[in-house]
Amino acid sequence: MADIKATRQQTKLHNRDLVIRTIFDNEPISRADIARTTKLTRTTVSEIVARLMGEGLVEEVGQGSSIGGKRSILLSLVADSRYLIGVNIAQENFIGSIVNLRGEIKDTVSIPVQGNDGHKALELIYGIIDRLFAKGWLPVVGIGVGAPGLINSRDGVIINAVNLDWQDLPLAGLLENRYQVPVTVLNDSQATAMGEYVYGEHGSDKNLVVVNVRHGIGAGILIDGRLFQGDDGGAGEIGHVVVEEDGLVCRCGQRGCLETVASAKAVCQKARVLYKSPEPVSLDMLLSRFESGDAVTRQIVVNSAHFLGKAIGSLIGVLNIKKIVLTGDMPRFGPDWLAAVKESIMKSALNRLTHETTIEVGQLDYRACILGASAYLLQDSYSILFTQPEK
Amino acid sequence: MADIKATRQQTKLHNRDLVIRTIFDNEPISRADIARTTKLTRTTVSEIVARLMGEGLVEEVGQGSSIGGKRSILLSLVADSRYLIGVNIAQENFIGSIVNLRGEIKDTVSIPVQGNDGHKALELIYGIIDRLFAKGWLPVVGIGVGAPGLINSRDGVIINAVNLDWQDLPLAGLLENRYQVPVTVLNDSQATAMGEYVYGEHGSDKNLVVVNVRHGIGAGILIDGRLFQGDDGGAGEIGHVVVEEDGLVCRCGQRGCLETVASAKAVCQKARVLYKSPEPVSLDMLLSRFESGDAVTRQIVVNSAHFLGKAIGSLIGVLNIKKIVLTGDMPRFGPDWLAAVKESIMKSALNRLTHETTIEVGQLDYRACILGASAYLLQDSYSILFTQPEK
Repeated sequence: MADIKATRQQTKLHNRDLVIRTIFDNEPISRADIARTTKLTRTTVSEIVARLMGEGLVEEVGQGSSIGGKRSILLSLVADSRYLIGVNIAQENFIGSIVNLRGEIKDTVSIPVQGNDGHKALELIYGIIDRLFAKGWLPVVGIGVGAPGLINSRDGVIINAVNLDWQDLPLAGLLENRYQVPVTVLNDSQATAMGEYVYGEHGSDKNLVVVNVRHGIGAGILIDGRLFQGDDGGAGEIGHVVVEEDGLVCRCGQRGCLETVASAKAVCQKARVLYKSPEPVSLDMLLSRFESGDAVTRQIVVNSAHFLGKAIGSLIGVLNIKKIVLTGDMPRFGPDWLAAVKESIMKSALNRLTHETTIEVGQLDYRACILGASAYLLQDSYSILFTQPEK
Repeated sequence: MADIKATRQQTKLHNRDLVIRTIFDNEPISRADIARTTKLTRTTVSEIVARLMGEGLVEEVGQGSSIGGKRSILLSLVADSRYLIGVNIAQENFIGSIVNLRGEIKDTVSIPVQGNDGHKALELIYGIIDRLFAKGWLPVVGIGVGAPGLINSRDGVIINAVNLDWQDLPLAGLLENRYQVPVTVLNDSQATAMGEYVYGEHGSDKNLVVVNVRHGIGAGILIDGRLFQGDDGGAGEIGHVVVEEDGLVCRCGQRGCLETVASAKAVCQKARVLYKSPEPVSLDMLLSRFESGDAVTRQIVVNSAHFLGKAIGSLIGVLNIKKIVLTGDMPRFGPDWLAAVKESIMKSALNRLTHETTIEVGQLDYRACILGASAYLLQDSYSILFTQPEK
């Protein structure tokens, strides 16, 4: 009998998830349309909606079009009824934000990492989240983290993040213990993809690839509206696909990885060599030379775009996903860089596929990762929104 | 009211699909376990099972383990209660088979293509299917076709199949008109992947990539047990990903596609040049020289394996799918070829990903495509099995 009870309880939670997801994706929406979309009965939907309204999560916001003479009442989520914390720890500054249910950022805290790694880097994360909690937004129902490296999202473990010197760090568990709310940890490129998918305006396609070109390079893949992470969370690890045989040694140990020729770090290093600069060259410096029309800089940037385009062409050949969004630092080089990427893509895979593919630039900058990490937490289980779990 | 009726009818069909899929995947299975897996009520499951037994599709095959003192009766599909036709039109011979519900091949018909294309090739397909119907297996409930080129499976249209000189050919519609049964058309590499997934013994993983290396090269991708075809059916078109810049001209118009260096056709062409042979070199000839230890042949084969490994490494970087199956003609070169492919894979993507990936050789040969085409037809809609559709 215990089993049957558990199953009923699961079904109830599943149905609540379904209803809230349907409102989230389609708001404003009537009870009748929720029933139609979810295939639940009208009675079940009405019961669940009544409970969600009782919890302050859902509200009636007006009347829809007439059906059979009777106008239906439309429902929406109450955007500020719950808050999430999204944290991006894949940049030179760790950044965390308070986000409401509509993806609006209410407050942001940022801390420079300054080379801290290991336990010190963890303390920085605690510092950010402590400060966000102290801002007083209530209730905060969960924390989503976008982190660099190879992540096991199922268990919330960072398997390997070279720059932070973390191996097998159970980050989700540590944060759950400290803050007593659910926590998810995602690879930052996957989180960025999720953010652009949910909150960027890239049309209604359910399949989307977001390629994040910063210090490193990674992609996030949305299939049928869900993040596809592969068997071990490594889907989209295109930064370490070899594109130049016997090329430069990469931090992963291989030679000629995409990161060694097409990342922001790679172009800065290449520029330092070609400029014969004793000092490191910053991306800002490179950008200003690029904009002033310097031929050497132009060659460096176009060459990097060429390799990126090859890798994206290969990705199009594998996935045939027709919308690709480019985010991160390299898109700052603007239309010329983008044109060079596109030109290379067109030469790198079947014409029938590449010609049908749209390449866009991301809209949310560093916020994509924060918003995506929090949106993933929601999509993973809307039940975190329920403040009064059923007994 | 018409709408509500349609919805109820849909729900009924959906539930029947669900029950039959559950039996298919788990047979032998008890009614209680079907209810548990599908989350349908015991009553609904019993009603559906009674109807399926009435139609001769399902039978009771014994008793399961005791639950609460009562032994449950186990159910299986009746393998020979329905037949499907699977056709492979991506080889030098068109091959069609009668297949039962357990993927057992009951009869096969083969016709050499001998350069026929356009309407003549279509006539050959009719010829094969006519002869299969004439064998008298009853009832044949559907036809699945594995075809070369870019396919729109949703509409059953062959968008482009160069070798057969077909553009925008509505093959499924033509066959449905002629034979009055449902027809699906799949890209042959996708069909092959489906066949290896359902009937090959590659473990219980729900994600699988099958790379088919023949005259051309293509992959089929299974995600969560379903074929992933991409937005326009072109997922897995890795044969036309460029792996050698400024390489040989490919039949697709680009230069240096994977097919130009790693396909069976490519190695035969390369051998003809290096052997200085006035006549075309057959794969059998190449194989026998390879097996006799000829150094030039060995170099040709290892070089082709190197490029294939690079492309598969890239695929692993994108998908992080941990089981990859190689099928087609090139695996005939055996362990040395396979070792060369693996060595190249290990150098082509992140170690953490490639080291966790298993590379296997396919088990079903040309039958994979036939079985996969028919299995896809089933998975697409089990309702084709129902001889007495509900009014």
